[in-house]
Amino acid sequence: MGPEATASFYERLIELTPARRDQDHLHVIIAADPSVPDRTAAFLRDGESPLSAMRRGISLLVDAGADLIAIPCNTAHIWIDELREGVDVPILDMIEVTARAAAAALPHGAQVAVLATVGMIESDLYGRALAALGLNARYPSPAEQEKVTNGIVGVKAGTHREARELLQDVGHRLVADGVDGIILGCTEIPLVFETEAVGVPVFDSLSLLARRTVNEALGVDAEAI
Amino acid sequence: MGPEATASFYERLIELTPARRDQDHLHVIIAADPSVPDRTAAFLRDGESPLSAMRRGISLLVDAGADLIAIPCNTAHIWIDELREGVDVPILDMIEVTARAAAAALPHGAQVAVLATVGMIESDLYGRALAALGLNARYPSPAEQEKVTNGIVGVKAGTHREARELLQDVGHRLVADGVDGIILGCTEIPLVFETEAVGVPVFDSLSLLARRTVNEALGVDAEAI
Repeated sequence: MGPEATASFYERLIELTPARRDQDHLHVIIAADPSVPDRTAAFLRDGESPLSAMRRGISLLVDAGADLIAIPCNTAHIWIDELREGVDVPILDMIEVTARAAAAALPHGAQVAVLATVGMIESDLYGRALAALGLNARYPSPAEQEKVTNGIVGVKAGTHREARELLQDVGHRLVADGVDGIILGCTEIPLVFETEAVGVPVFDSLSLLARRTVNEALGVDAEAI
Repeated sequence: MGPEATASFYERLIELTPARRDQDHLHVIIAADPSVPDRTAAFLRDGESPLSAMRRGISLLVDAGADLIAIPCNTAHIWIDELREGVDVPILDMIEVTARAAAAALPHGAQVAVLATVGMIESDLYGRALAALGLNARYPSPAEQEKVTNGIVGVKAGTHREARELLQDVGHRLVADGVDGIILGCTEIPLVFETEAVGVPVFDSLSLLARRTVNEALGVDAEAI
């Protein structure tokens, strides 16, 4: 949905594909319709629903012959059940993929911070996915969440340096508060977040979805990022 | 055709679009089918024609409702007349766009080096486009062209540092030989070439096509890259 996140997702697919020449790469079709109404506004404030625009995107991909669909927008997954209705092509679940990566890396009962849009936080999608795997979601405080929201908006507006500072600051506070890991649960965040800098494992939903997509498409294990 | 060039083209479209939020961006559909047979092999060595695979890509875009089509692969333009046949949606001509940028920046009679695939060189597409605008194409010598070819193959194979050295070296030699400008006439080349380092104006076909695409789509002048 965010064009930069979509472009970065495509870059990650290319990087993760073992290839020496064009013909070794995946056949990729991208439907990037940025006019899809704001997902968080729709969920929280009864804004225009993004569902029909997202369904048009899915239909375009199905009609074009897609064998597998990935949606590199966490907040869009609020509607994943509706999007899957009547669609025979498998649609990967980014939330499940990311939560599973956290569960594979962290001990039972670990506390995982979730950096995401307010819509995602309110939907509790990550909270439920983590709980089902024996992990606890830790959401930012209202003041921290405001920084996260401004960071996400800043990435979309192209002010990357300021956005990075806001997001990194929240990451550091959450680690100081004792979280065991951090989920980057909005695909704008990995475009600027420095995962090495926070000192706990970071689960980047954008890279994890890209890796899962390549694995499914090729039936081989992609290299770690 | 080269996935990395396609991803970079999409990044350039995003960068060139004046936008503060998702909804300000262009609606982009990408059909990236890397199984399209090698364009240079087809043209030079009677390899499998890429035309039917490229036509499938065009049909996909037309069926998806595209109002404008850009093909970020110079060598594919050998077949542009065939690709345009029976297609009502305008298809931009990357060669013309790039040659016009050179003609706008350089004096009549200037000599312009063309870094491109052997297929492009043999087709003389740039030579004819430049001649029509009063400029002279200067193609690399066979030894220089081997470096260019290895540079392009290197970008596709992911060995960017070595590829950059090969391409940069040819650029320097051509400037030492007196060329007035350089066209990066293969979309893999701008992924590694340092345009500032050569001392003459460089015309990057990938960025120029992206700028023209944004201009046409928005009806406004995009910022210079």
